[in-house]
Parts: sequence; structure tokens; C-alpha cells
Amino acid sequence: MADMVDPQTEQKLIDKAQEKLVKRKRFEEVFPILVDELMAYCTSEGMPQDAKDWFKRSLMYNTPGGKLNRGLSVVDTVEIMLCTDATGNKTRELSEPEYLKAAILGWCIELLQAYFLVADDMMDKSITRRGQPCWYKVEGVAEIAINDSFMLEAAIYFFLKKHFRSDPCYVHLLELFHDVTLQTELGQLVDLITAPEESVDLSKFSLTKHHLIVVYKTAYYSFYLPVALAMRLINVEDEALYKSAQDILIPLGEYFQVQDDYLDCYGAPEVIGKIGTDILDNKCSWLINIALASATEEQRAVLDANYGRKDAACEAKVKEVYQAPNIDIKSRFEAYEKESYQKINALIEALPQDAGAVGKGGLKREVFRAFLNKVYKRTK
Amino acid sequence: MADMVDPQTEQKLIDKAQEKLVKRKRFEEVFPILVDELMAYCTSEGMPQDAKDWFKRSLMYNTPGGKLNRGLSVVDTVEIMLCTDATGNKTRELSEPEYLKAAILGWCIELLQAYFLVADDMMDKSITRRGQPCWYKVEGVAEIAINDSFMLEAAIYFFLKKHFRSDPCYVHLLELFHDVTLQTELGQLVDLITAPEESVDLSKFSLTKHHLIVVYKTAYYSFYLPVALAMRLINVEDEALYKSAQDILIPLGEYFQVQDDYLDCYGAPEVIGKIGTDILDNKCSWLINIALASATEEQRAVLDANYGRKDAACEAKVKEVYQAPNIDIKSRFEAYEKESYQKINALIEALPQDAGAVGKGGLKREVFRAFLNKVYKRTK
Repeated sequence: MADMVDPQTEQKLIDKAQEKLVKRKRFEEVFPILVDELMAYCTSEGMPQDAKDWFKRSLMYNTPGGKLNRGLSVVDTVEIMLCTDATGNKTRELSEPEYLKAAILGWCIELLQAYFLVADDMMDKSITRRGQPCWYKVEGVAEIAINDSFMLEAAIYFFLKKHFRSDPCYVHLLELFHDVTLQTELGQLVDLITAPEESVDLSKFSLTKHHLIVVYKTAYYSFYLPVALAMRLINVEDEALYKSAQDILIPLGEYFQVQDDYLDCYGAPEVIGKIGTDILDNKCSWLINIALASATEEQRAVLDANYGRKDAACEAKVKEVYQAPNIDIKSRFEAYEKESYQKINALIEALPQDAGAVGKGGLKREVFRAFLNKVYKRTK
Repeated sequence: MADMVDPQTEQKLIDKAQEKLVKRKRFEEVFPILVDELMAYCTSEGMPQDAKDWFKRSLMYNTPGGKLNRGLSVVDTVEIMLCTDATGNKTRELSEPEYLKAAILGWCIELLQAYFLVADDMMDKSITRRGQPCWYKVEGVAEIAINDSFMLEAAIYFFLKKHFRSDPCYVHLLELFHDVTLQTELGQLVDLITAPEESVDLSKFSLTKHHLIVVYKTAYYSFYLPVALAMRLINVEDEALYKSAQDILIPLGEYFQVQDDYLDCYGAPEVIGKIGTDILDNKCSWLINIALASATEEQRAVLDANYGRKDAACEAKVKEVYQAPNIDIKSRFEAYEKESYQKINALIEALPQDAGAVGKGGLKREVFRAFLNKVYKRTK
């Protein structure tokens, strides 16, 4: 009877899911307002209708439609920082202007992600994204997608200027986006030259490279950026707190990406919503690097001969090595997961608390707990 | 004996050419210093050697090597503003730090241009650029060029942060780059959807579209941006002066691009250094729009049937229409050139002069005269 949940607990879970949907809906409703602002600007500059229609279509096709985790994280973080007391109880709601500013920053991260993904799909020659054709695969788009990706990025700075120009945090917001953009592109570069799809060379791989790729390509913009933007928005000025946030969120982002790599191979396709292709695609995944670090000469030869080949039989041989007793990826992942959780938790608990004094620079542990709880032992 | 020049004039011309070469060389020597700064940053972030080598190669391949007009214009403008008196005589030299800051802003425009050109070449499927293969055509690069173009742009904000962060003009510099980037991308979008290489539809063309493409795709970043950056650098604060500068430089940039269109068809290949392909490539050029505006029904049919076809005979038929007496592109261009020169000159002469009081907001006419003289009746 393990599936039985008492009615009270069940109701709580339903309420929580409901609340999440409402939050998501409210956030989603902000984006069309932003698009309208950009269209009004295009009109004021005398842009022809077909160009405005094109830009709007690209914005709507590429920006919403994902999980919106990064964007929603900005709102969640601002809410925790401004609207909960030291024990985590809600003390008030965000005002409408407070909410709107947090949501706009959230959408700016989603635009940054859209900018990267439109380009990544072209570089990876991907076919679908979020259950629809990749933008460059849409009839009539093709290489124009490069300029469209540029415009998704340019939209970020348009919105920051429009909504934050007279705020004291403005230049910090600009710098956060600039810094994290370069970091993400560096990560993408390391990934592209370490793991090109056409030429397999496992000697280029290492756990150090994996760490670098994951931290730069994903962790900065997905984990550090939402929290740092929220902190700038509420005018946290103590630079040491940004360092503290980064010291927690970068390992958390790395842990998240290792899970991603694990789920690509061992997740249930019906749960994760896709069939993993990391082995076929020569990805510099955590799994292959763990395997390489412990492989015997014979196992290494199997990996060299079969990794990154577009062939199900080759893929199966790689998976066999992953499960060999001396490698045993599953156990290693479980150990890694446990260790990561403990390490990150310890970092969170070590945060100096300055309860309630957010304006003076307190950083609520709950901000990070919320992230960690979303990530820990996830199956999708 | 029209070719005879008296020895004194000849010496002056030689001196001027020599001075130009020295200026260019000094400017060129700044770029490797900037690249080293970026490499030092990559090292500090733990980037692997192959990624640093790749980034450096992309920066060096794509940024110097052009005419450097835009970058040098920043230096020239700052020099005119700070180091000449009301009669145009030189009163002093730029200090080393003044020079360096102007040159860095100049290189940031060159990086912006590199960002656009790497991408434009991919979108246009071009083969060569500045006498070498386009970056994406270089062995081993291909689609990675998209991420490389992103990194060329990101380099701009790295240098602005490093060198201008504590200057009062910092946020203005950032906004200038953001604004002009979006404007250029809008121009590129209008161009891409108005004049796709594969599907010819002359009904999409018009002089209005041509104006829009030229102003947004070229004039803002090539003409307004260098002067506006120079003005921000020396802390001109009167917004009306930026408007005045724009009101002169945008028409000047448009005139420059019309010349470009004209030279593509009628310039001497050995002088302009390339064989024009605008007619073959279905470009929304000034010439075709002038022709369309005056063409008879028969001429229009010839243009519809022959424009944008990859065929020398088709090209010749289009050129024939251009030279028909009722169209006579050459005469129209001469009239346009004369009219533009007079109009722009009148705008320059109408500038309120506040001789010597640059700090208080004067805008020297010589800044614009220098531009106009470089452009007027050019043959390459």
C-alpha cells in the first residue's frame, strides 16, 4: 500500500502543483507584453510589416515553450528574498512592479537561452527542439536563423534599457549578461572542439574538460545568472555574497548536468521525453569520462572503436563497458549524487545568515535550498 | 600636362600618404595587446590551450585585415575634437592614454563588424572576404563559425568593461553598442527577406526599402557609431549634439552605400578590387530601384526576367535597361552625388559652432568634413 497517500498530503501536493501552474501562467503572460514593446520600437523606426512579423514570429517560436526554469528562478529568488521571514514563512506578496521587473529579467535569461539554442541547433545539425522543428529547419528560415539568433540576444539589451535604465542596478545587470554570455560561449567552444560529432578522439576527453564544459556552457547562465540577477534587482551590494552564491550554484549546476548526462543513458524515455543520443553523438559526457578514467586497455579499445558511431550495436558495446564491474557507472553515479548533495548542503548551511536584513546584504539559505530540492534525485 | 604636379604639392601628397600609413600602423599595433588581454582572461578562467588558440586565431583572422576605416575614424574624430583649434590647426597631440582609449573603441567597432561579417558570409554563402577564404570556409571551422561570431561580439564588452568601467561614459558606450547592434541586425533582416538570393521578386523592392536597408544595415554602425563613441569618450553630454551628428552622418552613410552600389556595377574592377555581382545576386541595390521607378512595362518585364539570375547574359540585359535613355542610371547617379554633397555640406555648415568649447558641447565641423571628403567622388 506504498502508493496510498493520506488525503491531507494528497491535497497539499495538488495545491502545490496548482500553485506552480498559476505561477507559470502569470510568468508566461508577461512575454507578449515585451514582444509588443519591441514591435512598437520597430514601428517607430519605420520597419516594414514583413520584417516586424518575422521578428515577432522568431521571438514567439524560440523563446517560450521550454520549461522556463531559468526565468521562473529569478521570480522565485526575488520572492524568497523579499517576501519570507527567517523561518521561511511568507510575509507578503511581491508588488505588481516588483513582480514585473523580476519577470522581465527572467525573460531576458530565456532570450539568452533562445539565442544559444537557435545557434546550437544549427551547429549540431539538430532536427527538433521542444517537440517542434528547430528554427533553422522551418520553411524559409535556413541561414537567416543566424541573424535571428543575434536579434534574440539584442532583445535582452533593449528590454534592460527600457525597464532598468534609471535603476541603480542597471550597469550590474548589463555586466552580468555580458560576463555570462562570454563564459557560455567559451564553454560552447571547448565543447565544440573537444567533442566534434564527425571525428572521435577520446584522448581529448577528461573529467577536467567535462567540468569546464559543464560549468561554462551551462552552470553560469542556468544557475548563477538567475540568482545574481535577483540579487542585483534587490540591490544586494556586498560582492562577497555574489561569490558565496556562485560557490554554491556552480557546483549545483555541475551536479545538475551530470544528472542530465546520466539520464541521457539511464533515464526512462517516457519520463525524460526523449531518447538519449550522447554515445552516438560523441558527447563529452560524465559517463564516458568516468569510464575512461577506470577502463582497462581492452575496455579502452572497445570505447575507442565504438563511441560516437551512429550505430546501435556500437552504442550497446559502450553501454556494456559502462556496466562492467570495474567501472559500474550506476554505482559511481549514486555515490556522486550523494556526495554532491552533502557537499552542496554543507555549503548552504555554512552561509552566514543575516535574517531579514536582505537590503543590508543577507542571503537566505532558502534560495539555494529551493534550487537543490528541485534538482536532487530528479528523474526528468 | 595635366598630370604634372609641382614638386611642393607632390611632396605634400607623399607626406599625407606617409602620415596615413603611420597612423594605420600605430592603430594596428593596439590589437595584439587587446588579444593578449583576452587570452590572459581565458587563462585565468582555466581554459585549455586549444580553446585559447582557437579564439585567438578567430580574432586575428577576422578582425584586422580590412580597411579599418571605422576604427580609424574614432581616433581621427577624437583627435579633431581635442587637438585642433577653431581654424583647424593642430594645437597638440593626443596623450598616450587618450590615444589608447580611442583606439580601443575603434577596435570594438572593428570587432562588431567582424561579428557581422563572419555571419553575413555564412548567410550569403560567400567564398572569400578580404582576399582570403571566409572564416567558415577555413578547414575545420564550418558551423563553429557561428559561435566564433558570438565570441567576437562578446569581446567588445570584455574590452569596454576592462578599459572603461570606471569612466563616466561607460554606460553610454554600452548603450551605443547595444542600440547600433540591434539597428544593424534589423537592417540585415530587412535585406535578407527583401532580397533572398534564391527567389527573385522585384515587387518587394523600392527606394524606401533600399533607404531602410542601407541606413540600418550600414550607416549606423559605419558612420554614426565612430563619431558618437568619440563624443562619449570626451564626455559630450548634450543629447542634441548626438542628434545633430546623426542627422549628418546617416545621410552621409546612405550616400556612401549608394556609391558602393554604383561602383559594384560601374567601378573599375582593378580599382575596386573585385568584380561586382549585385545583379547576379538579386541585391536590393540603388541602381535596380532607380530603374524600377522609371521602367516602362517592357523594361520591367526584362528586369523581372533577368535580375538575380546567375547568368552573364541576363546580367548584360539588366545593364542594358540601366543605360536606356529614359533610365540613364549614370546621369541619375551623377545628379544624386551632386545633390547629396550639397545637402550634406549645407548640414555641416549649419552646425552651431562653439569653437574650442568641446567640453561644453561644441561639435567641430571638421569632424564631418573629414568624413565627407573621404567619401565624395571616391572611385574605390
